Parts: sequence; C-alpha cells; structure tokens
Amino acid sequence: MAARTVKLAVIPGDGIGSEVVAEGLKVLEAASSQYDLAIETTEYELGARLWHRTGETLPDSVAAELRQHEAIFLGAVGDPSVPSGVLERGLLLRLRFDFDHYVNLRPVRLYPGVESPLAGVAPEDIDMLVVREGTEGPYAGAGGVLRRGTPHEIATQDSVNTRFGVERVVRYAFAKAAERPRQKLTLVHKDNVLTFAGELWQRTVKEVGVEYPQVSVDYCHVDAAAMFFVNQPGRFDVVVTDNLFGDIITDIGAAITGGIGLAASGNINPDKTFPSMFEPVHGSAPDIAGQGKADPTATVLSAATMLDHLGVPEAARRIEDAVSADLKTRAQDGAVRSTSQIGDDLAARV
Amino acid sequence: MAARTVKLAVIPGDGIGSEVVAEGLKVLEAASSQYDLAIETTEYELGARLWHRTGETLPDSVAAELRQHEAIFLGAVGDPSVPSGVLERGLLLRLRFDFDHYVNLRPVRLYPGVESPLAGVAPEDIDMLVVREGTEGPYAGAGGVLRRGTPHEIATQDSVNTRFGVERVVRYAFAKAAERPRQKLTLVHKDNVLTFAGELWQRTVKEVGVEYPQVSVDYCHVDAAAMFFVNQPGRFDVVVTDNLFGDIITDIGAAITGGIGLAASGNINPDKTFPSMFEPVHGSAPDIAGQGKADPTATVLSAATMLDHLGVPEAARRIEDAVSADLKTRAQDGAVRSTSQIGDDLAARV
Ligand SMILES: CC(C)[C@H](C(=O)O)[C@@H](O)C(=O)O
Ligand SMILES: CC(C)[C@H](C(=O)O)[C@@H](O)C(=O)O
Repeated sequence: MAARTVKLAVIPGDGIGSEVVAEGLKVLEAASSQYDLAIETTEYELGARLWHRTGETLPDSVAAELRQHEAIFLGAVGDPSVPSGVLERGLLLRLRFDFDHYVNLRPVRLYPGVESPLAGVAPEDIDMLVVREGTEGPYAGAGGVLRRGTPHEIATQDSVNTRFGVERVVRYAFAKAAERPRQKLTLVHKDNVLTFAGELWQRTVKEVGVEYPQVSVDYCHVDAAAMFFVNQPGRFDVVVTDNLFGDIITDIGAAITGGIGLAASGNINPDKTFPSMFEPVHGSAPDIAGQGKADPTATVLSAATMLDHLGVPEAARRIEDAVSADLKTRAQDGAVRSTSQIGDDLAARV
Repeated sequence: MAARTVKLAVIPGDGIGSEVVAEGLKVLEAASSQYDLAIETTEYELGARLWHRTGETLPDSVAAELRQHEAIFLGAVGDPSVPSGVLERGLLLRLRFDFDHYVNLRPVRLYPGVESPLAGVAPEDIDMLVVREGTEGPYAGAGGVLRRGTPHEIATQDSVNTRFGVERVVRYAFAKAAERPRQKLTLVHKDNVLTFAGELWQRTVKEVGVEYPQVSVDYCHVDAAAMFFVNQPGRFDVVVTDNLFGDIITDIGAAITGGIGLAASGNINPDKTFPSMFEPVHGSAPDIAGQGKADPTATVLSAATMLDHLGVPEAARRIEDAVSADLKTRAQDGAVRSTSQIGDDLAARV
C-alpha cells in the first residue's frame, strides 16, 4: 500500500489534450508508484465542448471541487470554434488567478539528441529556468474602451504590479537560483520605458538580493533578452520576469529547445494554499487531434515538474532521465511512434 | 549643381554613434549625388555628454531647430553613466512622439553571405518588413505608483491605444504589403489576454483590409510570433504590431539576420508634417567606442531607408545592393576592416 495518496484533478481539455494527458498519467503513475506515492485522479470536463453545451467555462461547483485537490493536471484547452480569449480568460487564467499561481515555472532545457533550430548549440548551452509571474501585470484584465466604433475610440490596457506580488515571485526565483550550480539570476523587464513597473521590479530584486549574496544578479531589457535567447542563450540561468514578458520569452525558449512539443510548465502556488496546476505549454492542436500523432513529452515533463512540487524530486528526476534517454534514441533511430507508444516507452524506462 | 537639396539634421550621439554616422553620411552622399540630390547637414550634440554638462536631454531650442529639417540621422545615444530611461525617454522617445513618428519601420532581411544563428536558413527564407507603431501603446508613459516603498506599493503601467493611432499605422502596413510580391500582412498582438487593445487592433485590421482585397491577412499572438520568428520565419511578409511587441520581435528579427550590427530602422512620419528620423537599431556600445571596430552597416542601411522616404528609391536600392555585395565579399575573404574601411568600401561600391 502506498505511503501517501495524492488527489489529482485531471482536465484533459480539447483537441490533443486527452491523448497527451493519458500518456502523462501513465508515466506519472509508473514513476510515483516507485516512491510509495499513489495518484487518485478525478476527471473534469472543461473546455470548448462544455462551453458549447452550457456556455460555461468554469462552473462554480467545479471550481470548488478542484480546490479540494492537491494538484491539477491539464492537457490543453481551446478550439477555433470558440472566440479568442473566452477559454483563456474564463478557464486557464481564471484558474491561475483564483488559485493564486504566482509562479509560472518554465524550464528551458535542450535535451541531448533534440535538434535546435539554432546552429551549433549543444545541450550545455541551454539550461535555464524561467520564473514568470502568474497573477498580475498586464494579465490583470484592467483597462477599458471609450467611444467604441468611432474615430475617437480609445482602448486602454493596464498593467498592475504590486510589491507583494513582485516580491514573492522574486524571492522564489532567488531561492531557485541559489540551488543551481551557476547561481545566477537575470531580471528581464523594460525599465527604460515602463518606468513605474520597471522601477518596482528593479528595486525589489535589489532588496531581496541582499538575502542571497551568493546569487549574482543581472538585468536585461526584454528586447535584448529576446535577442540573446537566440544568439547567446548561455547567458541565462534563472530568469525572473513579469507575466507578459514571460509569456513571450518562454515561447522563444520553447522554440530554441525543439519546439512547444517538449515545453513543460507549472502554475504554482508555492504556499500550497491552493492546488497548483501543471500543463504543457502547447495548445490543443485540433488539426492533429484524435490521430495519435501528438507528442506527449511536454505533458510528461509537466508531470515531472508536478512531482517536484509534490515533494518527490527523485521521481521527477526519473521521468526527466527517461525523457532524456527516449529523445536520444529518437534522434538515432528516427522511428515514428504514436502518442501512446511514446507514453509506453517512457513508462517502461521510468 | 544638384536639382534638390535636403536639409539633414545629424545627431551622432554617444559611444560608437559618431563613428557609424560618419560612414553613413559618406555612403549617403555617394548615393544621393548620383541622383542629383545634395545633402546639407547640421550636426547637433545631444546625448550623454550634453546631459552631464547641462542636465538637458533635448533643449527646446534644439527641438525647434530639428523641426526645420527634412530628416534626422541619428547614430546612437546612451551611456552607462546615465540612469536607465533618461536619454531613452528624454531624447529618443521624445523625438518619436513630438515628431509623430507613427511608423517605426524595421526591415528584417537576411543578406546573402551573412551567417544566421538559425541552422539551414537561406536569404529567401527571411525577408520581412515589420511596421511597428511608434507613438502610443505601452510607450505612452501613462501609469503611476502608490505607497512607494511600503509592502502595499502598487505600480501601474497603462497602454493607450487609439483608433486614430492604430488605423494610420495599419493603413501604412497594408499599403506596404500591397507593394510586395507576397502581399501578406500579419497582425501580431495578444488579443486573448489584452482584450481591449487587441480587439481594437483586430477590428481595425479587418476594416482597413476591405480596401486591400489583394492583401491576405493573418493574425498571430505575440508569443507564437516570437517562436515562429525562430522556427518558421518564412511565414512572415509584412508584420504590423504595437509599440512594445514591435520592440521585442524586431530584436528577434535582428538576431536571426545576423545581429543588431546590421539592423536598420526608420522612425517615420509618413505625412511629412515633421522630420522623420533614421537610426540603427543598435545602441552606443561604449565598450568598443573610438576603436574603429563598430560595423557601420546598420547605419548605412538606415540611410537607405531614409532615401526611400525622401523619394529617391533608386539611390536606396544602390546602397542596399552595395551592402549586399559587401557582405558577400566579407563572407568570402573574412578580412577584418575598420569602421571607416567598411564605409569607404561601401561608398566605392555605390
Ligand atoms: C493561452 C494563453 C492565455 C497563455 C498565456 O498567455 O499565458 C499561454 O500563451 C501560455 O503561455 O500559457
Ligand atoms: C532605447 C529604447 C527606448 C528603444 C525602444 O524601446 O523603442 C529601443 O529598444 C529601440 O528598439 O529602438
């Protein structure tokens, strides 16, 4: 009998979501069972289909149930039949905000054997951890429209940044940097233009940094950072940044490490006041849904991030090692496998 | 005697600014003289030195004089000794805003012979034109701070978008797209999160697009666009986007086409109510200033963009062809040349 049981809410979502989630769970269970951890899953149907049927994105009753879980495992939501923003704001962002996922953790790592679109980079050149703020900034939803549809229309969009919100994610990032061999933290912002928010971020990093003298601190404007991700990715170890800049640079991070098929993410409430949520960075890819063509690797790596959060880092490392070995084999034999074959192979390796 | 004389204000600026501007002018004159265009320059000392001496970034009298010119040619401003934002907002952005440079034009082109950090891309894979809005959005400078220095501090940063401002840049972008062989325009925004501004941009593109039935229109979230710049740059022809997204993606554009040493830009007032300003995308690079090491190519290409604006496209093409030939030779012989040698070679080729 398992020493501990984790109650996990599963949201397969739309498109390839259910396919990749199934493999993620397969590998998760293979890894956790070796560490006396049982996973008890409850599935929730949320996403495009629910919205079409009921007009709801996240019924209150479901939100209340989700809250009773230790973590949430999500595939992907979204479909071209749903207007842009409805599911993003009504479901994904609502979960991030309601469950106070103030750390959006996105490892950017080039696995051996994976082809990067960058010429001549090796795995040791790209190994960073982006700590993206997840609950404020330009994602606050603040703003408005005046005189809509007239030549005098004005639309505003307001970024809201609080010392409370910035400090907690900056502190998390410093703690992560302190644990890593290079002990380097780079703040990415645009303080020469976004002066109000930028100064708050800069000052907070400076002040929290006093508690981490071993961590060297760097600053990079977001435009330069976007460039360096492409031509000098080795500059970065841990990166801390705001919600929108983090959204953009982690997609560059995904691009340089072989694409969003491999990019994992955790929406984390480090205080464990609410369940954290783990999901691949990719979307629901309706064009290839139901064909067994989706690569479940990003979802599997998100499961590893979840195991770290659940306090079983050994199990997380096993999954990462299995992925690493699998990607190496893939580079050698080049065989095309289905979604579930990749899941089976990873589970067997774990 | 020249048929026409252009009054050009020259702002060499800081660091490598004066070195690259000298070469830019050399090549500019070589090209324009062949088309009966005389360039009459007046130099203005603006930048870090002036600020240290007088505390001023743009004296009103200088601003008034600059206004009397047809165009402004700028090297680079900025120095580590000046606090972040002072010269950016007090000089660069002030000129862009005061002179209503609503089009920030940034060609992203891979020249033959130039090494891209992307594996396996050829010049025909990267040939786009980014039309970045230059006078509003998150650059408005709106926002504020409450309870600074307390745990309850809040900093806001507001993006201001007007139908007037969006429509004119969108119309410019459509006109550019209509002139190009592929006739494709991609709007880059983040309308699923920045819903107020995003909807205004989307609607404006749709409405103006009716006037350009021959242009095919595409939309891309900024995070996906950042990724596609790296792994599918061929998707893009003309891109239209807001001030901040344009800042970020054009630096990725610079990275994939060989770095900011080659990236040109024009801050354009298409209505010619005010002088337009042409400058390389790179900064003042104080570490290599005064050593003849800076590559003047980005500045030279900015001069070409200026000649287009001044209505002498044949002269602009000559400069671009000279740059293209020079970069090819550079790839072959790999000889290290000084800033002025590169300028001499380009002037000779023009
Ligand atoms: C779907 C969207 C709202 C989301 C975001 O912008 O955060 C996505 O791009 C991501 O990065 O997780
Ligand atoms: C220097 C800075 C204010 C400027 C900008 O943000 O526009 C620069 O990055 C650019 O792209 O020209």
